[in-house]
Amino acid sequence: MPVYTVSNVQNIRVCVVMVGLPARGKSFISQKIVRYLSWLSIQAKCFNVGNYRRQHAGAEQPNADFFDFGNKEAYKIRQHAVTMAVEDMMRWFNEKGGVVAILDATNSTSERREWILKLCRENAIEPMFLESWCDDQDLILRNISEVKTTSPDYQGIDPDVATKDFLERISKYESVYEPLDEEVDKDKTFVRLINVAQQVIINRIETYLESRIVFYVMNLHIRPRSIWLSRHGESIYNVEKKIGGDSHLSPRGLQYASKLPELVKRSAGDVDLTVWTSTLVRTGETAQHLPYKQLQWKALDELDAGVCDGMTYEEIEEIYPEDFKARDDNKYEYRYRGGESYRDVVIRLEPIIMELERQENILIITHQAVLRCIYAYFMNVPQEESPWMSIPLHTLIKLEPRAYGTNVTRIKANIPAVSTYKEKGTSQVGESDLNSGNSRSVLTSAPELNEQQEST
Amino acid sequence: MPVYTVSNVQNIRVCVVMVGLPARGKSFISQKIVRYLSWLSIQAKCFNVGNYRRQHAGAEQPNADFFDFGNKEAYKIRQHAVTMAVEDMMRWFNEKGGVVAILDATNSTSERREWILKLCRENAIEPMFLESWCDDQDLILRNISEVKTTSPDYQGIDPDVATKDFLERISKYESVYEPLDEEVDKDKTFVRLINVAQQVIINRIETYLESRIVFYVMNLHIRPRSIWLSRHGESIYNVEKKIGGDSHLSPRGLQYASKLPELVKRSAGDVDLTVWTSTLVRTGETAQHLPYKQLQWKALDELDAGVCDGMTYEEIEEIYPEDFKARDDNKYEYRYRGGESYRDVVIRLEPIIMELERQENILIITHQAVLRCIYAYFMNVPQEESPWMSIPLHTLIKLEPRAYGTNVTRIKANIPAVSTYKEKGTSQVGESDLNSGNSRSVLTSAPELNEQQEST
Repeated sequence: MPVYTVSNVQNIRVCVVMVGLPARGKSFISQKIVRYLSWLSIQAKCFNVGNYRRQHAGAEQPNADFFDFGNKEAYKIRQHAVTMAVEDMMRWFNEKGGVVAILDATNSTSERREWILKLCRENAIEPMFLESWCDDQDLILRNISEVKTTSPDYQGIDPDVATKDFLERISKYESVYEPLDEEVDKDKTFVRLINVAQQVIINRIETYLESRIVFYVMNLHIRPRSIWLSRHGESIYNVEKKIGGDSHLSPRGLQYASKLPELVKRSAGDVDLTVWTSTLVRTGETAQHLPYKQLQWKALDELDAGVCDGMTYEEIEEIYPEDFKARDDNKYEYRYRGGESYRDVVIRLEPIIMELERQENILIITHQAVLRCIYAYFMNVPQEESPWMSIPLHTLIKLEPRAYGTNVTRIKANIPAVSTYKEKGTSQVGESDLNSGNSRSVLTSAPELNEQQEST
Repeated sequence: MPVYTVSNVQNIRVCVVMVGLPARGKSFISQKIVRYLSWLSIQAKCFNVGNYRRQHAGAEQPNADFFDFGNKEAYKIRQHAVTMAVEDMMRWFNEKGGVVAILDATNSTSERREWILKLCRENAIEPMFLESWCDDQDLILRNISEVKTTSPDYQGIDPDVATKDFLERISKYESVYEPLDEEVDKDKTFVRLINVAQQVIINRIETYLESRIVFYVMNLHIRPRSIWLSRHGESIYNVEKKIGGDSHLSPRGLQYASKLPELVKRSAGDVDLTVWTSTLVRTGETAQHLPYKQLQWKALDELDAGVCDGMTYEEIEEIYPEDFKARDDNKYEYRYRGGESYRDVVIRLEPIIMELERQENILIITHQAVLRCIYAYFMNVPQEESPWMSIPLHTLIKLEPRAYGTNVTRIKANIPAVSTYKEKGTSQVGESDLNSGNSRSVLTSAPELNEQQEST
């Protein structure tokens, strides 16, 4: 019997059918939903009709005329693209055990939507229409300039020309666009987001999975902001190579705590931020000099090692050799006796992620496993990799969410610390992250610099 | 620094202003919100204008003419009632540290709502309008017959006469009712529930607390259903008087597991239900013979006793005397070293409660502390009492949520078990719940029968 995850409360498959004119953030929302659900171990995939169209139509870049609904030949190509996308989607549901698919396209006419609805019903899939409706011209223009001029359709084309052509393309769609209607569509399951969730209309949401997606989408915002992540400073237990516990910081850990305000200030400037810590002593001590509002969360406490709490990896290997091996074999699923697995941590972090989506600038001071899980959410790191990521001590990580990914900067404090990174198949941890000069990051092959940029 | 609870993420005070005709479930929703928030330790209170009107107007029962908007004298009385309610509410915010108030009244005119809006703004309180709009005549009539004929306004009056008068009262309100309008009210924070959340319109929800209330309300339903609660059968650890751990059932515990299907069948009849267990061995063993779909939830695991896990209360008193006393002094807040408090358990149970609200018939097999927390939610048990409730082993509890409370039935299996109930100020637990014949329930003073009814 599998342990509860969101997906298996009901045996439901959902197709989220995006609706809306170009440049309304449909792809942004689609990708966020996929990332969120995947992080929660729910099989989710986005089917972007534009990509199918580009594959089918070849490399030639279409101009706005291609999107004229009177252009019969182009219309046939576009019709073919959506058919291919939907066929792939159905195959994915039926052969790959898909749970939530996002059909990312304008789906701007009622006729198109009825066609998809019928296909879904025939395949026992719940269709949920998700319309992004926007009449805030500033928002639309920002979206056009930020995202669409980097679209494959406009590669190598002068941004001004691209913007003009894109506006023309939008007007072609406007001529046939039929928004969802509270009366006409009252028997369908749908969500209408008006000007990025300023107003939300929710109709006939009947399953848990749908309600989770809706709540998530309601909490998204697009105001610019940053999130900073740091592990606590080196602790006494780190030095003694023990896991878990609730020990104080080592002298070097206290040094990191003293230096942290300066690192944060350098990265954040004068923006107002809030510090979140766990309830364990070592994160509170690390945050002690930070001149910001602070909040403690039990949900940010370290992965519970159960009976192994307070042991070294050598001791665990000796006393629980089978467990030690089982954890190496599947670190994400392995649950310490009387403790937690990475999966368990993800489930308890879900409200934290939801709250992070709502908030603006937040600095989180937490623990290795918890930080890996949060990082995995923002950077879309697969489950088999996330428990093995290197997140060294005495390093501040800055995340800047963008329309199609997240920028990462790592800022090292240049204060030595033991390494707590245990490689697969050994019970040894490295001596010092800083001194070894050995970057174990799975996220980048670049040499570790003091300030280093990655992006998804 | 307080540990995170929902309330203190932002320093916000919210007035939920109910809107809607009589018999639209406003009081039901108001009371559910108050119960939910109180359970999450958020200071919440409902101010029902009808109660103020009855206090002010005295014992005389008003008929529908009283609610005619042309009746100047009655109108003055009603105006006075709402003024008193709002004054009390503001006092509660300002003097008692109130966080969420619900103003439960029809608030059916735009003028009334603007007046409340202005008052809220002057007091730095966020007004959130929550309208229950319903044109489903079956729903309305069901609501009228279930709830309103038991209203203090109709005490001792023939139900048919009462219904007729009440329908007339509703029509008086209909003549002046102005629903919230997506265009006119677009700058206000509001939620419109159409036919019990079949459609939901959400406008300008800007704070976390508001979004939590909205998500909760979205998940409510009013279909009849029952929830059954049971602790696992007596475990080896129970017999050895040890707390925590992950032991198997004792022979008597296995007997309970064998008898449970019959107890459930007797209480549930042929309804389809789903069984939820924790991830610990003893709940799985208790559920093993139940012929229903089963789901495991980590969030249903017992309160984590940290370093005290596996000890007897005598040992805890000896080894950690200060902790032992601290826990007795404030059992709700006390967090075991490296473990959890009741408050922590409530926070991790919140998704379970949300899911329970969505579902229909569920049987939960879990642990003493977790069961106390779930029971406290449904029965509105105050925090200082809930950790001290007696929830004996080998007893099935049936909860039937109703419009204004929850009916409880306790069904004893008549299989002896040790008592795991520890009274305040002692480290002793009773010998056997069944044999002692000593009811420790704080919920009822009735003798413990095999089937026993309580209600809130």
